[in-house]
Amino acid sequence: MAIRYPNGKKFEKKRIPERKKNDYNKDSRFSNRGMSFEEDIQASGEYYLTHGLAVIHKKPTPLQIVNVHYPQRSAAVVTEAYFQKPSTTDFNGVYKGRYIDFEAKETRNKTSFPLKNFHAHQIDHMKAVLKQQGVSFVLLHFRLHEEIYLVPGAFFVEWYENKEESRKSIPKKDIEYHGFLVKTGYSPRIDYLSAVDTWLARETY
Amino acid sequence: MAIRYPNGKKFEKKRIPERKKNDYNKDSRFSNRGMSFEEDIQASGEYYLTHGLAVIHKKPTPLQIVNVHYPQRSAAVVTEAYFQKPSTTDFNGVYKGRYIDFEAKETRNKTSFPLKNFHAHQIDHMKAVLKQQGVSFVLLHFRLHEEIYLVPGAFFVEWYENKEESRKSIPKKDIEYHGFLVKTGYSPRIDYLSAVDTWLARETY
Repeated sequence: MAIRYPNGKKFEKKRIPERKKNDYNKDSRFSNRGMSFEEDIQASGEYYLTHGLAVIHKKPTPLQIVNVHYPQRSAAVVTEAYFQKPSTTDFNGVYKGRYIDFEAKETRNKTSFPLKNFHAHQIDHMKAVLKQQGVSFVLLHFRLHEEIYLVPGAFFVEWYENKEESRKSIPKKDIEYHGFLVKTGYSPRIDYLSAVDTWLARETY
Repeated sequence: MAIRYPNGKKFEKKRIPERKKNDYNKDSRFSNRGMSFEEDIQASGEYYLTHGLAVIHKKPTPLQIVNVHYPQRSAAVVTEAYFQKPSTTDFNGVYKGRYIDFEAKETRNKTSFPLKNFHAHQIDHMKAVLKQQGVSFVLLHFRLHEEIYLVPGAFFVEWYENKEESRKSIPKKDIEYHGFLVKTGYSPRIDYLSAVDTWLARETY
């Protein structure tokens, strides 16, 4: 298979060290988790962009770059970098003059959405965005139901901050009641802007 | 000097290969260029954030991650990654309900600002943002004058797209006329939001 790097250099198998089985488990805790859901959201963003409907991008993964190597006659290569915790949500942009800001998460749970994947600094970010009258929300994907909900930021923040030990998940019925079911299809795959329209027209939260 | 990695591991000198003099020249073409100007803008963003005035962040540098190593008992380390061209501008966020989006550049030129540092895809991004009624601009820093101007996106895009061979730079006098001088000081260091206020109050461009 002719895989090439972005700089046009041919893929060299020897440069990829063999992985132990265990590594894949570790991998799933990082960027691979929920990758296809994220990819679908990014594809929807591209649809919105090419159709002139909105400008919404995923932020690159923040990396602490420690070492860069500059080979002769080829592109600079980062040889040592560490993942950093993002201090904001993953997606933002502009839609009809409004600032759009959201985080996307998925679960295999059937009856509730666990909040353990959200960090306090992301909640702080959502609060700051709300204070600036930004359109803040989360997209929650119930994988087993194949349902995606737009959950308004204010509702989400309130739940997160008031949760007790027994409420570390939001019950699905509360998400159904306070959130907006997102239409999915071929193009755009995840039509979250329609859900934004429905939400903002109702002006709840 | 006790340098530690973000994961708490101690800095090991042997892991950093020696650089040739030539490498530093190459380095200056990448992330080091204009670093302190960018850092000042980021510090101003932190000032705005902590004072509840705006939520504006720099996007992380986009990297194509090719290989990640998972050492036992320590953080994952990216061992091979390549710099990618950003498809958007560097800074965005929300201010009083408005979407803010800008790129920051500096020059040592005295009488004009060369446009060669801007890419066509960044101009496309600015046009898409303007279409969505976002607040799009560039911050141009004349290093020798120590002057920073906010230049409205529409003016900048018009100039970029209509430039002929002889107009690959914007004369400083045009920037002075169509742009807004940005106050600098201790805190915030670069008060570009005051310039945004002045600009939006006038509603030119």
